[in-house]
Amino acid sequence: MKLPRPYTVKEISEILGTTFEGSGEQLITGINEIHQVEKGDLTFVDHPKYYDRVFFSSASAVIINTKPEDSMGKALLFSDDPFRDYNLFVNQFLNFTKSNVAISPSAIIGKGTIIQPNVFIGDNVIIGENCTIHSNVSIYHNCEIGNDVVIHSNTVIGADAFYYKRKTDGYHKLLSGGRVIIHNYVEIGANCTIDRGVSGNTTIGEGTKLDNLIQIGHDTIIGRNCLFASQVGVAGCVIIEDDVILWGQVGVQKDLTIGKGAILLGQSGVSKSLEGGKSYFGSPAVESREKMKEIAYLKQIPTLIKLLTEKL
Amino acid sequence: MKLPRPYTVKEISEILGTTFEGSGEQLITGINEIHQVEKGDLTFVDHPKYYDRVFFSSASAVIINTKPEDSMGKALLFSDDPFRDYNLFVNQFLNFTKSNVAISPSAIIGKGTIIQPNVFIGDNVIIGENCTIHSNVSIYHNCEIGNDVVIHSNTVIGADAFYYKRKTDGYHKLLSGGRVIIHNYVEIGANCTIDRGVSGNTTIGEGTKLDNLIQIGHDTIIGRNCLFASQVGVAGCVIIEDDVILWGQVGVQKDLTIGKGAILLGQSGVSKSLEGGKSYFGSPAVESREKMKEIAYLKQIPTLIKLLTEKL
Amino acid sequence: MKLPRPYTVKEISEILGTTFEGSGEQLITGINEIHQVEKGDLTFVDHPKYYDRVFFSSASAVIINTKPEDSMGKALLFSDDPFRDYNLFVNQFLNFTKSNVAISPSAIIGKGTIIQPNVFIGDNVIIGENCTIHSNVSIYHNCEIGNDVVIHSNTVIGADAFYYKRKTDGYHKLLSGGRVIIHNYVEIGANCTIDRGVSGNTTIGEGTKLDNLIQIGHDTIIGRNCLFASQVGVAGCVIIEDDVILWGQVGVQKDLTIGKGAILLGQSGVSKSLEGGKSYFGSPAVESREKMKEIAYLKQIPTLIKLLTEKL
Repeated sequence: MKLPRPYTVKEISEILGTTFEGSGEQLITGINEIHQVEKGDLTFVDHPKYYDRVFFSSASAVIINTKPEDSMGKALLFSDDPFRDYNLFVNQFLNFTKSNVAISPSAIIGKGTIIQPNVFIGDNVIIGENCTIHSNVSIYHNCEIGNDVVIHSNTVIGADAFYYKRKTDGYHKLLSGGRVIIHNYVEIGANCTIDRGVSGNTTIGEGTKLDNLIQIGHDTIIGRNCLFASQVGVAGCVIIEDDVILWGQVGVQKDLTIGKGAILLGQSGVSKSLEGGKSYFGSPAVESREKMKEIAYLKQIPTLIKLLTEKL
Repeated sequence: MKLPRPYTVKEISEILGTTFEGSGEQLITGINEIHQVEKGDLTFVDHPKYYDRVFFSSASAVIINTKPEDSMGKALLFSDDPFRDYNLFVNQFLNFTKSNVAISPSAIIGKGTIIQPNVFIGDNVIIGENCTIHSNVSIYHNCEIGNDVVIHSNTVIGADAFYYKRKTDGYHKLLSGGRVIIHNYVEIGANCTIDRGVSGNTTIGEGTKLDNLIQIGHDTIIGRNCLFASQVGVAGCVIIEDDVILWGQVGVQKDLTIGKGAILLGQSGVSKSLEGGKSYFGSPAVESREKMKEIAYLKQIPTLIKLLTEKL
Repeated sequence: MKLPRPYTVKEISEILGTTFEGSGEQLITGINEIHQVEKGDLTFVDHPKYYDRVFFSSASAVIINTKPEDSMGKALLFSDDPFRDYNLFVNQFLNFTKSNVAISPSAIIGKGTIIQPNVFIGDNVIIGENCTIHSNVSIYHNCEIGNDVVIHSNTVIGADAFYYKRKTDGYHKLLSGGRVIIHNYVEIGANCTIDRGVSGNTTIGEGTKLDNLIQIGHDTIIGRNCLFASQVGVAGCVIIEDDVILWGQVGVQKDLTIGKGAILLGQSGVSKSLEGGKSYFGSPAVESREKMKEIAYLKQIPTLIKLLTEKL
């Protein structure tokens, strides 16, 4: 997420009550967790496994629980609990408040857009022109919807990311500072859930069509003209390129990429990145023709056993 | 869908601005896409793969992009884009409009029926007697619900079919002129989605019980006394006969038939029509006892490998 | 469910119009179906398969359709249709009635709790302090929610159990007299469904976190600090112990136990009880390393076939 104004590293260290190393005058313009960082961003890291990923990232400053040998030029803010202090800083910019009305007066709704009864539209939501938002849809604060978008009944746009850190006393939640961005000509079915980003934005590209009961996780980026059938579930931090087709009940794990034009047959489970332009099937998903061969081979096992029993 | 009054082929050709062949006086009483056509219907076809299916169907008139050798006695309306012109004609009979109230004044609700708070009921909906419609349910225009039906909270009845045609500039939507028909004594769980037909009606037979989070696609016809457990997904144009049981998370592909009394075990994936009276399992689903054998055989592969390594 | 006051066996026999055997003065303090019975409870049984289970249970009285040789000291109420008569008795204590307002005046809502627009809260619901109930959530009558709980939009708490008995004229429903109990620090995502117990309570333990589109069946008991990813489905009468992780689209069959700390990988199907502390995968689920071996072995079948064809 972009900050409402740039903060210096020194200012942030004062807000968090931490010491820092590096230029105190360095300007920080955004906050993002490690999957999404850009130049100017503050991020956090609390596990040696991820130190390198952070130091080699584009982040400009890092809340960290150790003093590394080489921080690769990044400003460091030292904390005994970087997760907690990152949340503390994010929390200043979250503007979720109790709504007293179903459609926030700060929401902007374009001309020609139809809002059906019992819709909830949170603070600072922007909806473009000629959209139809069907009954009982919920759109959380700050989300942004383009033109000519259709959202069917009871779909939820912008609920919090499912992102927790296990501590000794239970799970602690990473606050969701990001948004959902839906581009023009998207259609979303009924009873879908599109979570907001924890720091970046969950994005659905122009012309993409989603059927009913679909889950899209936080910070996931979906390209243009994709087609997802009913009950597809996509985890967080996934990149789905243009023209991808996911058939019914496909599940996609977090933090991977599905290439342009890939097709996943029904009930497939995607556990690693997949090249574009091919058809996949199975859980875990492999190329469809490989899976079909596997299914055919499986049917030959009884014959193999018979052969072996007779011949050996 | 039935037309509000019969149209002659000539009238339709004038509305669409097309030429035609065959009797201009032929009366057209309905419009349906190819899965659902009856005598008196207008349909459309734009791909050689489906020409024969259309010519051998019961349709009385066809919007088509070629001049065939033999149209089997059907009236033909010639169009460079039959999909677009079919949509153009359907669009005249769709009566979705912005609702200013949550329960449309044109809806008919039978005596003894309880409508809980925050329910949306669209134009011309008919609900029978002694039903309970729980909070936050959405029922789109024109849907029809029998007597003694229970619909649990946040379920959506009658959202648009997920039916698109890929063109060079993205996906174009086939407009949904059909309805949802729910017969007596049906119970539908919470957060389900039952899509309307594109031209025919999505139908749920008497006494059928649906658990939560279930998807039923457009134009699908479900028989009497079926039982579907939670998170089942049924695609469009499926026929499910009486007394079928689908256990949790079963997925059913489009345009197939499941015979009377068939049982599908949990998480099965149905990719072709299945005979009634049998139990099935797996993705793709096969007879349960075959699948169980397959699972047992699979466990013998290590022994086979060992045997082969030793003996050969 | 606990009865509002104790009833004697004689009183119950008079309400139901049945004869009885055993002490008419025996006090009955609760009603429960066989999965949940405690001392003082009335239950029912109508199939020889379950007679022993009932006689060896803690129940104090049984509605039954036969006269057994030994009732193990339980009071018996004789009925030609125990299911019907059990429902008849339960029905006296159900207090679902039409709501005229979205938030029942009999609901108790703790201080600091935010209720967003379009939420439905039924009769006698109790919600603790510092909760956030997002827009379009539905909470049925009698459910109880602790402190610091977050429920995201369009989730449904307390819809009826999916519990039917097949009779010659179709499915008859077992009435749901139980509730949903959600403990402190639970977070539930958007568009989830948590069904009420048929006689006991569906329970979600302290600190457990649920993602979106999750189904939890009737009378299921979930421990503390569990983590369920999106589209998980858990059937009725399941016990899930503390610290269990279910990844996306996992399905769990009814009436089984998952031990403390077990992890189920995405899309797994649980068909029998699983020991704690281990990782499982597949449908049906087996230990992950077994499944991984199976997948590796499967890839060797072509080589086996080649070997055999050459050598035998």
